[in-house]
Amino acid sequence: MPPNMKQGGRLVVIGGDAAGMSAASRARRVRPDVEIVVLEKGRDVSYAACSLPYYIAGLLHDRSELVARDIEFFRGERQIDVRLGAAVDELLPRKKLVAYQDAATGERTTLEFDALVIATGARAVKPPLPGIDMPGVFTLRTLADGTAIKEEIDAGGVERATIVGAGYVGLEMAEALTARGIEVTVIELLPNVLSTYDPDMGAIVEKELLAKDVILHKDRRVDGFEPGDRSGRVGYVLTGGQRLATDLVIVAIGVRPAVEFAAAAGVDLGAGGAIHVDARQVASDPFVLAAGDCCEAMHVVTRRPVWIPLGTTANKQGRIAGGNAVGGDSRFGGVAGTNVTKIFDLIAAQTGLTETAAAAEGLDADSATITAASRSHAYPGGGRMTVKLVFEKGTGRVLGAQIVGEERVAKRIDVVAAGLHAGMTVADLAQIDMSYAPPFAPVWDPILVAANQARKKAAG
Amino acid sequence: MPPNMKQGGRLVVIGGDAAGMSAASRARRVRPDVEIVVLEKGRDVSYAACSLPYYIAGLLHDRSELVARDIEFFRGERQIDVRLGAAVDELLPRKKLVAYQDAATGERTTLEFDALVIATGARAVKPPLPGIDMPGVFTLRTLADGTAIKEEIDAGGVERATIVGAGYVGLEMAEALTARGIEVTVIELLPNVLSTYDPDMGAIVEKELLAKDVILHKDRRVDGFEPGDRSGRVGYVLTGGQRLATDLVIVAIGVRPAVEFAAAAGVDLGAGGAIHVDARQVASDPFVLAAGDCCEAMHVVTRRPVWIPLGTTANKQGRIAGGNAVGGDSRFGGVAGTNVTKIFDLIAAQTGLTETAAAAEGLDADSATITAASRSHAYPGGGRMTVKLVFEKGTGRVLGAQIVGEERVAKRIDVVAAGLHAGMTVADLAQIDMSYAPPFAPVWDPILVAANQARKKAAG
Repeated sequence: MPPNMKQGGRLVVIGGDAAGMSAASRARRVRPDVEIVVLEKGRDVSYAACSLPYYIAGLLHDRSELVARDIEFFRGERQIDVRLGAAVDELLPRKKLVAYQDAATGERTTLEFDALVIATGARAVKPPLPGIDMPGVFTLRTLADGTAIKEEIDAGGVERATIVGAGYVGLEMAEALTARGIEVTVIELLPNVLSTYDPDMGAIVEKELLAKDVILHKDRRVDGFEPGDRSGRVGYVLTGGQRLATDLVIVAIGVRPAVEFAAAAGVDLGAGGAIHVDARQVASDPFVLAAGDCCEAMHVVTRRPVWIPLGTTANKQGRIAGGNAVGGDSRFGGVAGTNVTKIFDLIAAQTGLTETAAAAEGLDADSATITAASRSHAYPGGGRMTVKLVFEKGTGRVLGAQIVGEERVAKRIDVVAAGLHAGMTVADLAQIDMSYAPPFAPVWDPILVAANQARKKAAG
Repeated sequence: MPPNMKQGGRLVVIGGDAAGMSAASRARRVRPDVEIVVLEKGRDVSYAACSLPYYIAGLLHDRSELVARDIEFFRGERQIDVRLGAAVDELLPRKKLVAYQDAATGERTTLEFDALVIATGARAVKPPLPGIDMPGVFTLRTLADGTAIKEEIDAGGVERATIVGAGYVGLEMAEALTARGIEVTVIELLPNVLSTYDPDMGAIVEKELLAKDVILHKDRRVDGFEPGDRSGRVGYVLTGGQRLATDLVIVAIGVRPAVEFAAAAGVDLGAGGAIHVDARQVASDPFVLAAGDCCEAMHVVTRRPVWIPLGTTANKQGRIAGGNAVGGDSRFGGVAGTNVTKIFDLIAAQTGLTETAAAAEGLDADSATITAASRSHAYPGGGRMTVKLVFEKGTGRVLGAQIVGEERVAKRIDVVAAGLHAGMTVADLAQIDMSYAPPFAPVWDPILVAANQARKKAAG
């Protein structure tokens, strides 16, 4: 059970991004009397990390548009004691103590807490390659990263960029940099792009990248970086025996949960090396909760803990952790891993398990893939989309879906996500009374077409 | 139980639109050996009635774009004996006989059947008003109606049009005629437009109509029509003591199931005067099935039969009826009444019960209404949408939703529709892992914001 905080007690939240600020805000709403301290090691709170590619692309006018809520709003309106530049380095759960160092003054402070929410997020993986710390080699995770990349491009002289990793961050950056007039090369270790998708769906995305003149090297390892003639800045990427000239590198090979001091304090880790939590977001110690990219979540399909860091989950878990930390009793409903990304003129979305992932889970999975129009044939415009529905043989239980298409993809995947939460079969999915009007859908929505196809396969 | 048709037996389908042709096609797929006869009283099969406003608006180039599949496709490819101009006037269910008259020759034919699917649809209500049959006064239901209206406008001289009825057909036509440069007046008997929605949601649509210079008379009865000086054609609408000049009238006050000969044959009628059917689409006689706008369906929220004529339902029921008529055993999952319509620059969508309808059903309903952005604040463009979520007090069960907004409305309503099929509560809905990326949604999707709001109200 989560703690029931005493009158005027103190909640400490570590991390001031989505999960942390959601936790602090919810705690404040539930308990106007308690003291709430947020320790954020950086200079920003509650920023829109997912919009960084669009900021770099020049679609946003000002850095301030990336910040959902000003720090003064949290300090004033919500009476939350947000401390910036506060890098936590020690946690003593049994003693209910946390210690941090002030980045500006170097001063060390020890804080007692009645309850703690760890919301330290994840950090970009930075492989120990020769030249990785060279100027011009970036990762993209924080607002500071995004600002640095934008400044580098704004300063001029970036004609060629290399993106290491063809996951969604890498591909969103491929689009953003292309929009800036930069020639983009993407290098991917695996034989397919967007590897959280099944290869057949990734292949559609790959075609779009090539159509947009992205240079793609798959099945290729990056061995390091070398300076060019611009005063020690990166000039070359070493890969597969080649030396590719480049003016900018973005390493986008994934993220890892930021759990060092929590692990050192004996907080149990779980899936993906993230903090183990129960449905109430309570970690191995009853007064310690966690939320967001630093912790695991229950997967609604496998009913097992997974680590799928996403902003939507961080917000939901943050609220639950914040409420429970001060006496609430809410449970998180789990994740389906639903996500969507825009890649040039395509949209890719997924929820639940891919066929590959289902097989890896030991499930007897099959799939149905259809291509259909996004609108009625009797309405101008629209586009095509490919829907792949993954289901369990025999039972017909829906396990997941992937959609790649030109429009109206994002909210269609959510219909399947709802089906996953409800434990629907493909036959159930095929029965959903989905909306139709010529500007928005064909009379048989692509989701229903895929479900009908899957139902036939599941029955046969 | 539906009939198990004998080898080489004959299925007769009455009606060649969505439900009828779906039934015939499915029957053919299931049973290559049986004879399938479709009796269609008009000249067209399988046309996109919902696209007629866009055809009239001039968005489609050719009438042929309205026809999903050519009649020769059904006759050739699918070996379906489609007979046009075949107006059925008698049905003897016990004798398994149906009789029709050929519109061209006047010849009367009697056909034996082993199974019958009635898919006669609905027809536009034409009130017995003075002048209702005058040239220039139209209803809009069939392809012939749409073609006649378009020809009237194409011929020139239509500067002012009057639409009687502010339902979705009336409002789609208001947009279509405005697009043709015609001044549009809408007259509605009720005090609010789009009366299948709650009045607060209809009010948002009303604002849009006024912003687009539609002249609106609510709470106003139409008493008749009078000729003007154009050779006996309509010139005036009589309403509320006024005589409004007009060049064209479209009466769009609803539809009624076309069940005359079925009723005369003793086929049981049910909700809304439509043919009573069970989940297998079987009517009161075991060899007679029905599908589409002429029959009722089970409502997934109330679990009671309703009559909500929609193309999506017609297609689904048609397939089920066609399969079952020749020996299948499928059940229809029921309707949520999900629909969407484009009204100028707004989109209105609904599923399940409105608050008004829920109260009329005797349910103890409450609602939560929120307004939110369709995209992240940190992405350019997008619009606003208002989401009204209706739920049952105490249990928190979701009863329905309405959304009116500027973009990405249609497939969001489908997430709630999925929830209705699954019997979700507002708390369940709030837990759905919905997709997020700045171009497509805010991190808290409007559906989740509404669900959270509703959850608080339901709990308090």
